[in-house]
Amino acid sequence: MTAHPWNSLYRDSSPPASEDDCLALINDLFPERSGHFPLARDDDCAFLRLSSPALALSTDAFLEDVHFRSAYFTPAEAGAKALTAAVSDLAAVGAEPLGFSLGLFLPPILSRAALAGCLAGMAEKSRSCGIILTGGDLSRGPRLGFCLTVWGAPAAGDAPFAARGRAGPGDVLFLAGRAGLARVGFMALEKTGRQALGRYPEACAAHLAPPLLLAEGQALVRLAGQDPSLSLMDCSDGLARDLPRLLAGRGADLEIPRGEIHADVLRAAEDWGLAPESLVLAGGEDYSLAGACPPSLWPRIRRDVPLARALGRVRPDALFSCNGAPLRLEDLAGFDHFRPGNYSNARLKMF
Amino acid sequence: MTAHPWNSLYRDSSPPASEDDCLALINDLFPERSGHFPLARDDDCAFLRLSSPALALSTDAFLEDVHFRSAYFTPAEAGAKALTAAVSDLAAVGAEPLGFSLGLFLPPILSRAALAGCLAGMAEKSRSCGIILTGGDLSRGPRLGFCLTVWGAPAAGDAPFAARGRAGPGDVLFLAGRAGLARVGFMALEKTGRQALGRYPEACAAHLAPPLLLAEGQALVRLAGQDPSLSLMDCSDGLARDLPRLLAGRGADLEIPRGEIHADVLRAAEDWGLAPESLVLAGGEDYSLAGACPPSLWPRIRRDVPLARALGRVRPDALFSCNGAPLRLEDLAGFDHFRPGNYSNARLKMF
Repeated sequence: MTAHPWNSLYRDSSPPASEDDCLALINDLFPERSGHFPLARDDDCAFLRLSSPALALSTDAFLEDVHFRSAYFTPAEAGAKALTAAVSDLAAVGAEPLGFSLGLFLPPILSRAALAGCLAGMAEKSRSCGIILTGGDLSRGPRLGFCLTVWGAPAAGDAPFAARGRAGPGDVLFLAGRAGLARVGFMALEKTGRQALGRYPEACAAHLAPPLLLAEGQALVRLAGQDPSLSLMDCSDGLARDLPRLLAGRGADLEIPRGEIHADVLRAAEDWGLAPESLVLAGGEDYSLAGACPPSLWPRIRRDVPLARALGRVRPDALFSCNGAPLRLEDLAGFDHFRPGNYSNARLKMF
Repeated sequence: MTAHPWNSLYRDSSPPASEDDCLALINDLFPERSGHFPLARDDDCAFLRLSSPALALSTDAFLEDVHFRSAYFTPAEAGAKALTAAVSDLAAVGAEPLGFSLGLFLPPILSRAALAGCLAGMAEKSRSCGIILTGGDLSRGPRLGFCLTVWGAPAAGDAPFAARGRAGPGDVLFLAGRAGLARVGFMALEKTGRQALGRYPEACAAHLAPPLLLAEGQALVRLAGQDPSLSLMDCSDGLARDLPRLLAGRGADLEIPRGEIHADVLRAAEDWGLAPESLVLAGGEDYSLAGACPPSLWPRIRRDVPLARALGRVRPDALFSCNGAPLRLEDLAGFDHFRPGNYSNARLKMF
């Protein structure tokens, strides 16, 4: 494993000089203001002035050794992914990102340079998705951690949005984004560190710097607002765990042809002696969007969301199959932080 | 030290059964809804519908071994204080609490009963201040931790509020709430655990279950909105650190008569061989509100905010004195998570 910028920064012994030094760093890197955030950040509260009384809001934690490893994330990747993971919840409901508040936990051994790297990565990502840092809280923590609360303007004006469990038998099940790719990247990075970028480049990138499907989410939610037969959710815990939630009791006949599985997933399945379909179904954290719609709506979805791919058909009963063979989803269920028997299947090992 | 409910719960080996089990616990304990939060919590985002486009918003972390010790906090006290600490930022700007989003970090050894205790304490506090849990994020963490983002309706409609640094020479410096009491409680609890409740009961209570000055904050902010000569801020890091921020470059002649220092602070000063005034000035986390106003406004503040006590007078220069003697505030500066030389002065020891 080659020398890694994070580790060397972690080891250098020049921490931020003070809390004010950290705040200065943040103010330098996040200079943006917007109409909805007119005041300075160093007051006790951020004061927001929204253009609409409707708000979509979500909190997401991104903790070292739970959600990421400093052994193979660069600081900039860690900061950017913390924000991507949080904003993906806004993407999943088609909301336009507006602002975020940052809880930041810094271990004493973290250098100022590593902190600056994290914040720079986060700042660059915030500009690319048009979201403004309005404030937050700094404190010591046993390990580096981020806890972000993000908010945005709902796509459908002030109408609340809930689109799970609308699917009927025969509906087309679809996915915008990848399934399983990020998990392959995670497993490979866990095994060999950043060396894994050589053999599984896009899988590693899917874990280190996942895409954010904001436009796709907005297009799908617009359609779901017009057509109540469209079901939709983000697929963060893996298809095996999220499909039952999306379908709320119904099953599905899945079609996962080898030709549509990503080359990195096929390569990993061969290297590790696993079925590629199980990697596709069990993998989480791809930040993809899963949905189901009547066949009549499917052409419109393919047109508006070119990334969307058909995954199969919804069944009248609660059973699942994959490529014609019966499938027990619970055997490859995705990630549950809390189910004791599931730790070996966790995104990262537990403490 | 007597047996302690938290420790015994921490040691029992029955963790929550699953993430869904944790969510069920949360939904049981936080059944409240409000007009501004019409949808269920288990969607990807909370959808809020606000009655005003103006929002005051703040994030606050409350982490084990940084902000509290499980050795002497009961689970209910820890959960309640996590919320109090966050809502105190709303109190400081006179905002009416509306909702909060909860990042929750659970170590595997935490029992379900301890988690239930934390959440029950937080739920009771949320009802007493009228704030609604709208969602959040659960994850593993190396130690128990809470990261709350709270929001509320600003007191002064949609006018942004900033009231530091308005003070002029001769202005009355005042404090609503205690100074130094919570720090004495913290130091005593660190020394002897909950035994300290016997000798310093109100000081320990000020650390374990601090008051929330919502009505006082609203009254003061209303006055500050009417009279731009009133300066105001919450005093969370201790007078020594916060007074220079409030006065933005000016000094003050402080009067801290022994007769107005809390009996627990006087007792601790005697027990520990310290000057009681230094405990008053250095202590943080009392969640009190400090302000400065022209003498003509002072009678009105005393009437509207009976808790407010005069602390002294603002000086034309940047110097400070206490009871007639020169005072170097930097010698007893309050808490900075990040200043290396300040660790011995920290609320809790660093890792």
